[in-house]
Amino acid sequence: MARKTGSHSEITGPKVRDAALRLFARHGYAAVSMRQIAREVGVQAGALYLYTKDKQSLLFDLMRTHMDELLAAWAATPKGSTPLAQLEDFSRFHIHFHLDRPDAVFIAYMELRNLSDANFATLEALRREYERELERILEAGHAAGMINVPDTRLATMAVIAMLTGVNTWYREGGRLSQDAVADIYWDMVRGAVGA
Amino acid sequence: MARKTGSHSEITGPKVRDAALRLFARHGYAAVSMRQIAREVGVQAGALYLYTKDKQSLLFDLMRTHMDELLAAWAATPKGSTPLAQLEDFSRFHIHFHLDRPDAVFIAYMELRNLSDANFATLEALRREYERELERILEAGHAAGMINVPDTRLATMAVIAMLTGVNTWYREGGRLSQDAVADIYWDMVRGAVGA
Repeated sequence: MARKTGSHSEITGPKVRDAALRLFARHGYAAVSMRQIAREVGVQAGALYLYTKDKQSLLFDLMRTHMDELLAAWAATPKGSTPLAQLEDFSRFHIHFHLDRPDAVFIAYMELRNLSDANFATLEALRREYERELERILEAGHAAGMINVPDTRLATMAVIAMLTGVNTWYREGGRLSQDAVADIYWDMVRGAVGA
Repeated sequence: MARKTGSHSEITGPKVRDAALRLFARHGYAAVSMRQIAREVGVQAGALYLYTKDKQSLLFDLMRTHMDELLAAWAATPKGSTPLAQLEDFSRFHIHFHLDRPDAVFIAYMELRNLSDANFATLEALRREYERELERILEAGHAAGMINVPDTRLATMAVIAMLTGVNTWYREGGRLSQDAVADIYWDMVRGAVGA
């Protein structure tokens, strides 16, 4: 797949990001060198630095892009008018979005400790922003008497953990389609929050 | 904390395991050398090999010990007579056991990809054994009409993901005690499985 050499113009962001994503997911950030990433893209190691400052910048770029895309995709998702309908929208959205990006999700959880402090803080703020989207739905549902949880913050964390957990076992082409999984999980989410 | 040197008799299993656990959790398996572990224990690097064959053996030992302890502790946990009571026992047990061992849990999830194929297979079998404990409870609850889930396997994965998720946000000394968290999560687990 990798070509032996490439002109600088071929080192486009997406190609470098794809290669880094694959390699980080397979071997872990700490075990992957810029040289390996360059080889995967098909360019000389030195040429990689025309695109990215260093490996840390590359990791941060991957993780921030993932969170930016997550927030943008959720913002663009059509939503129901009641908190309960929005909770269903969120549950289905979360499962599909994450199942469609297994490597990015894997890295988002596995490589947090390898971020610099400043980069970690930025990522945490974006993650918190996403969590707040769900938390607001649960608060509105609670206020409307549509759901029943003693602690909306804990319910937020519980629902997100439950939904993200699908990525650890789901295999495309297995016995259940993404939609079938989303149906079953929506049922469990609704039950968990007493709706 | 670390001493400069130590006699061989001081290189006890627990000391080496504790040091490896701390370092793997903080920096990741790939980034930690046997030399660093030896320094943390307070012995020469060569002396470490009297206790363990290599870094892979050390990682596997940590992860297998964690799973062995998990299975043994659950087996020793007093259990209620109904599937619903057992589900509550399982939920509370899981939360307490995992919150008491943050580093071991972190490593159990983060370092799976760094295991050799044979070691990975052994670990997966132990993990599957633990999941089966919960799955059997859900099956019994379903058969007794006490719970209502369309798919006991998916409910098993959902409940375990939800419960293990507590480790990602819980801080000892925070606004909620372990018991308060377990109360709230038991409520959500019960709801998720329609009990």
